[in-house]
Amino acid sequence: MIERRINKLKEKAREFNVDAVVLFSDSDVRYFTGVDVSGVLVVYDDTVLFVSPLYFQKAKEGLSDKAKQSKSLDDVVEFLKSQKLKRIGLDFIRTTHKQAKAFEEFDVVDFTNQTLIIRMIKERDEINQIKRAAFAARNAFLKVYPTLKPGITEKEFADELAYQIRKAGAQKESFDIIVASGPNAAHPHHIPTDKRIEDGEFVVIDFGATVDGYNSDTTYTFLMGEKDDEKRELFNAVFYAQLYATEMIAPGRTKASEVDARVRKELAKYGLDKYFIHSTGHGVGLDVHEFPFISPDSDIVLQKDMVFTIEPGIYIPNKLGIRLEHMILVHDMDTEVIAFTPFMEIM
Amino acid sequence: MIERRINKLKEKAREFNVDAVVLFSDSDVRYFTGVDVSGVLVVYDDTVLFVSPLYFQKAKEGLSDKAKQSKSLDDVVEFLKSQKLKRIGLDFIRTTHKQAKAFEEFDVVDFTNQTLIIRMIKERDEINQIKRAAFAARNAFLKVYPTLKPGITEKEFADELAYQIRKAGAQKESFDIIVASGPNAAHPHHIPTDKRIEDGEFVVIDFGATVDGYNSDTTYTFLMGEKDDEKRELFNAVFYAQLYATEMIAPGRTKASEVDARVRKELAKYGLDKYFIHSTGHGVGLDVHEFPFISPDSDIVLQKDMVFTIEPGIYIPNKLGIRLEHMILVHDMDTEVIAFTPFMEIM
Repeated sequence: MIERRINKLKEKAREFNVDAVVLFSDSDVRYFTGVDVSGVLVVYDDTVLFVSPLYFQKAKEGLSDKAKQSKSLDDVVEFLKSQKLKRIGLDFIRTTHKQAKAFEEFDVVDFTNQTLIIRMIKERDEINQIKRAAFAARNAFLKVYPTLKPGITEKEFADELAYQIRKAGAQKESFDIIVASGPNAAHPHHIPTDKRIEDGEFVVIDFGATVDGYNSDTTYTFLMGEKDDEKRELFNAVFYAQLYATEMIAPGRTKASEVDARVRKELAKYGLDKYFIHSTGHGVGLDVHEFPFISPDSDIVLQKDMVFTIEPGIYIPNKLGIRLEHMILVHDMDTEVIAFTPFMEIM
Repeated sequence: MIERRINKLKEKAREFNVDAVVLFSDSDVRYFTGVDVSGVLVVYDDTVLFVSPLYFQKAKEGLSDKAKQSKSLDDVVEFLKSQKLKRIGLDFIRTTHKQAKAFEEFDVVDFTNQTLIIRMIKERDEINQIKRAAFAARNAFLKVYPTLKPGITEKEFADELAYQIRKAGAQKESFDIIVASGPNAAHPHHIPTDKRIEDGEFVVIDFGATVDGYNSDTTYTFLMGEKDDEKRELFNAVFYAQLYATEMIAPGRTKASEVDARVRKELAKYGLDKYFIHSTGHGVGLDVHEFPFISPDSDIVLQKDMVFTIEPGIYIPNKLGIRLEHMILVHDMDTEVIAFTPFMEIM
């Protein structure tokens, strides 16, 4: 499995005409070595992982002599020179400027996002891990759901959900849980406060689980109390934007940007597109945000074994927010919603 | 308060002869604006924070017209040009290579760690926040402590501790909690597993809380069951290393590197210094790891209103680990251990 991944990376390296790729991101290290440590991975004809003494024991257990103990990037530089490796691929987003400067004497090639392009096609085992994460998150949510009533604070609900996610077998929640009620929900990345949830408010709950390094990411929106025509229309606009964007995906044919455009078009029917202030979705895997991004400028064609979110939302300042997010797995001929949860009492 | 901070930064900017400093780190943004968002902060004669639409509403509420909505770094570059700002300071560790490349047409000056040098002298309010975080973490620990017995798994204990930390008023744990028992404790950054804690084992518990953005960081080590001479000696070596390193600090005179050396000297008496595979400590504040670092190559003089950890440890592969970590606040004439917890049954 790891060998197949490394071979794909070597193929990309040849494509970019580099002698070696040097990777700094934890998720890249994990994907291409199977070991969960921080380190610097050098892939050339062979593979070497440079790790600090803090992680050396663990790296050695997983990689034996492919793991090298190192206290500074100088060791990596010396190694590249000793192997006569001259053209070096770096991911400019996942390399700090200081790290990149250590390679100034080499011929540095822009290798940005190339590992994410490999990682966006998930293997069978990865899909199962993501599903396990999604089901752990959903099962945890169902445990806490009965307490979602006017009077509970945003933070109380978030804390209980985080606890139940861990009890459901996840290592932890995949990111800081968002529970945003009423006007707070106008902030897409609201941090839960001691504000009590009140009758008549929309409550946005964005959460996920991490299981064996793989993540899930889902958002539900609930209405506390009775719906009225205005609220139903707002909710339905987001709901249908998500539904139509999901249904339009033809594996191997639809571009990410087209899915994003479909969301915007649907929201525009209600005059709500101006309140949609982020992109439509993102891939999910070892990182919570990875390829493919579902955004206006993403020309990636959606295809078999990709996993990504579709998450339209509207954010009306000082008033309310609504976001619905589910995860899509693309098959040969159709798509599957992972851990679908039919909370539609609002419609 | 914010103005005083900005003035210190402007002074540093003059010292480095730069026209503007451009900051990307979330903790820098929070420290120099008071607003908890992701963004790009430009400090010149004035201050501007560029944020994505995701955070614009929140940024505007905190900063009014100093917050500018932006979708790309091009906006920052255009702004600098419009203001005729030419020499730009960047922190090379907290700027990605891709971000730095956006400033290639400017005269880029290495401003690495300069904000951390300002931030390492804590204000009264910051010290109180750190103490609140430390007490929340300790109170949570005391709630869970009675369950620390052979039979409980590492993960069960970690999950309960995380839950109680949140219930104690913290936003969350300040980093992934480490509960490492027996041979697992030989990995300084062990991730809690389903392994049951057994009689006769050392258990290392490294945890902290985040309150209003400020963090705590503490490590306890317990021995399950009866001590014997060997275990007592190992524990005492670490305990005295921590004690002597703490006691030697003379505010305004002792260098960080001297404290680190004191730990190593003490461990060497027992032949244990080879098992100490990290540095002695680090500052704590808006980041869990910040200045001053207490390491062999850190010449910073420890002085009033610094907060940092002292955390000697020994890690014997396949056998055991012991780490003791407390947080020190430096006063005028002496030092204070924050949220001291006297768990010394092992000695």
